[in-house]
Amino acid sequence: MSTVLESYLNDCRALVTNEIRQIIPGDPRYESILYDLMLDYPLREGKALRPALCIATCRALGGQLESVLRSAAVLELYHSAFLIHDDIEDESLMRRGLPTLQMQHGIPIAINVGDAMLGLTLKPLLENMATVGLGPALKILEAISRMVQESVQGQALELDWVRRCNWDINEDDYFRMVELKTGWYSFITPIMIGCIVARAEEVQMTQLAEFARILSVAFQVQDDLLNLSADDRYGKEIFGDLWEGKRTIILLHLMRCASRDEIAEVKRILALRRPPPAGINHDEQLKGADCLLAQLVAEGHLTQSGFARLTQFLRPRECYKQDKDVNLIMELIRKYGCLEHARQIALHWTIEAHGRLELCRDFIKDSIHFAFLQELVGYVFARVQ
Amino acid sequence: MSTVLESYLNDCRALVTNEIRQIIPGDPRYESILYDLMLDYPLREGKALRPALCIATCRALGGQLESVLRSAAVLELYHSAFLIHDDIEDESLMRRGLPTLQMQHGIPIAINVGDAMLGLTLKPLLENMATVGLGPALKILEAISRMVQESVQGQALELDWVRRCNWDINEDDYFRMVELKTGWYSFITPIMIGCIVARAEEVQMTQLAEFARILSVAFQVQDDLLNLSADDRYGKEIFGDLWEGKRTIILLHLMRCASRDEIAEVKRILALRRPPPAGINHDEQLKGADCLLAQLVAEGHLTQSGFARLTQFLRPRECYKQDKDVNLIMELIRKYGCLEHARQIALHWTIEAHGRLELCRDFIKDSIHFAFLQELVGYVFARVQ
Repeated sequence: MSTVLESYLNDCRALVTNEIRQIIPGDPRYESILYDLMLDYPLREGKALRPALCIATCRALGGQLESVLRSAAVLELYHSAFLIHDDIEDESLMRRGLPTLQMQHGIPIAINVGDAMLGLTLKPLLENMATVGLGPALKILEAISRMVQESVQGQALELDWVRRCNWDINEDDYFRMVELKTGWYSFITPIMIGCIVARAEEVQMTQLAEFARILSVAFQVQDDLLNLSADDRYGKEIFGDLWEGKRTIILLHLMRCASRDEIAEVKRILALRRPPPAGINHDEQLKGADCLLAQLVAEGHLTQSGFARLTQFLRPRECYKQDKDVNLIMELIRKYGCLEHARQIALHWTIEAHGRLELCRDFIKDSIHFAFLQELVGYVFARVQ
Repeated sequence: MSTVLESYLNDCRALVTNEIRQIIPGDPRYESILYDLMLDYPLREGKALRPALCIATCRALGGQLESVLRSAAVLELYHSAFLIHDDIEDESLMRRGLPTLQMQHGIPIAINVGDAMLGLTLKPLLENMATVGLGPALKILEAISRMVQESVQGQALELDWVRRCNWDINEDDYFRMVELKTGWYSFITPIMIGCIVARAEEVQMTQLAEFARILSVAFQVQDDLLNLSADDRYGKEIFGDLWEGKRTIILLHLMRCASRDEIAEVKRILALRRPPPAGINHDEQLKGADCLLAQLVAEGHLTQSGFARLTQFLRPRECYKQDKDVNLIMELIRKYGCLEHARQIALHWTIEAHGRLELCRDFIKDSIHFAFLQELVGYVFARVQ
C-alpha cells in the first residue's frame, strides 16, 4: 500500500473511531455490557475504507470535513453491524485477526449487538440536520435506506444459493450479487453521501456512483483472490470462503473448466457443513468416545472389529468438510488456472474503474482527496498483479 | 376477550396488514426470496396490539386514522423483526402456532430477514413527512430511535443473565428489564407516536406514556403466567420459558421460597441447554448408534456391560434439559404458590394502570378508541383472575 493511501486511511480511521466513541456513549445505567461489545469490531483496526471513500469524495468536491464526518462514522457503524451478522450467517471463525463476536460471546448476544448498532445509526443521521441542513440530511437518510435494502437483497441472494446448493449461476449473476451485497454499502453509498454533503450536481453523483459500482466488483474479486492466497495479514481465516462454501468467481470458473467427476466432487464437498469449532459439546463427546472405546477393548468388552465399526460410525467424517477436502479444491483451482482467470477479471474491472474516475476530472480538481481515490484504484491494480 | 376489544384489534390488524403489503413491495427483480419471508410473521395473525395501541391513542386524542396508519404499520414491522431475531436468540421452536422462521429456513436466512425488515422501516418513516408534517415526522423518527435503543438494552440485560447463569436479581431488576425489553416497543412508543400524530401536549404524552409503561409490566407478568398455563391457543411452546431458561417473576419467587437444595437443582436444570430439535445430525447419529450397539452385542462384539457404559456415555442425557426436569420445576412452582404470587403482582400493576388511564379522562373524551384502551386494561385484569 502506498504511503499516501495508508496515511489517508489512517487519518480517516482515527477521526471516525473518535466519532464512533461519541455515538456509542457508554451509558452508566447499563453497566456497559452492550456498549463494550458494540465497540469491539470498530476498535479492531479495520481499513476504514468506507468512511475514507465518503470523506475523500466530499472533500474532493469542495465539501467540509466537519460536515461529512458523522455520516462517515455511521457508514462504519453499518459496516461493523453487517460484519457481525455476516460472521454468524457464514459461521466465520476469525475477523481482523481475532475470533468473531459470536465465537466469543455466543450467537444470541452477537445478533443483539448487531441490532443495537443498526438501531444506533438513526440518531446521528437525524442530528445531521443541524450540520448539513434539512435537505441534504433527508437525502442522506434516503441513501442509507436504499443502501440497506440493496445489501439485504444481495445477502438473501447469496444465502439462497448456499442453502439450495445452487451452482447454476454465471459470472453476471455473481457480479449482480456482489453489487447488491457489498457494492452499495461499501462503495456506492459512501461516495453518494460524499456527493450529497458537498452538494454535487445530480449528473456528477451519477458518474461517481458508476465509478463506485465498478470499483466494488474489482475489489470483491480481489478479496476472493486474497482469501485463497494464504496471507495471514488478511485477518480472516485462510481458505475461509471454501470452508464457508461461498460462490466466488474462482469457483465459478472451476465449475466451467473441471471434468464432470471433479465438478461433482467439488459440489459434494462445498455442500458439506464446516466442522463445529472445538469446545462444542458434540465434538468433545465424540473425542471422549474414542478413549472409552479403547478402554472397553483393553478390558475385553469390545472386539477389535467392533471398535473399528464404532469408531467409523461415530466420527463425523462424512458430514463435515475436512482439511483434505479443502486442499483438493485448492489443487483443482490451481490445475485449471482459476486464480489467473480471476486476476484477469479483477484487472478488467480495475481498468474500467480507472477510466470512469478519469472522466470525473471534468468536474473535480486535483487534490490530496482525489489523489486518494486514484491511488485506491492503483492499489487494486497492484494487488491483482 | 370482549367483542369490542376483539373487533377493534381485528380492524387494526386488517388495516395494518394491508399497509405492510405496500411497504414490502415484492420487487420482481429479486424473485421474491426475501419479500415472501418478510411477510411470513406479519401474516401469521398476531394480535396487532402495537398498531392498535398507536391508532387508538391517536384517535382518542382527535387524530386521524390516515395520519397514523403508516407509523402503526412500521411498529408492527419492528415487532416482527424483533420476534425473528428473538426466536433465534432464545432458540424458540414455535411462533404463532407454526415453526419459527429459523426452524424453517435456518439461522442465516432468518437473521437476514430480520435485518431486511429493520432496514425497511426507514423509508415509510421518511415518507411520513408528507402525511403528518416535518416536525411530527422527525419526532416519530426520534421516538423510534429511542425505542430501538431501549429494546436492545433490555435484550442485552436478559441475554447477559442467561449467559452468566445469573439469578442474583430481584423483582425490581426484572421490572426494569421488562420495561426496557418490551415496554418501550410494545406499549410506550406506540402510545407516544399516537400522541405525536394527534399533536397532543407534552404533559398529556407524559401521562399516557406512564400508563403505557405500567401496563407493559402487567402484560409481561401475565404473559409469563400464560406461558406456564399449557393453553395451546397461546401459539408458543408450552413451558417454553422454562426450556429457554428465561428469568420470570414466577421463577424469581421460587428462588426466594424453595429450599437450598431445591434452588440448586432448579439452577442446575435451567442452566442446561435445551435439546437440539429433531432432525439435527447429532441426535440422529446418536440414535443410530443405539442400533449399531445392539447389533454389535447380538454379534458378540460387545458385552452387555460394555453396551450399558457406551449407551450411557453417548446419550446427551446429562448436557440437555429433559421433560422430567421441566416437570420438576413446574411441581416446585405449584408447591410454593409462585403462580398465585405472580397473579397478585399482575393484578397490582393492572389496577395501577387502570388508575393512570382514568387520570387521562381530564383531557380525553369518551370514544370507541378510549374504550379500547380501557377494555385492554380490563382484559389483563380478567386474564389474571
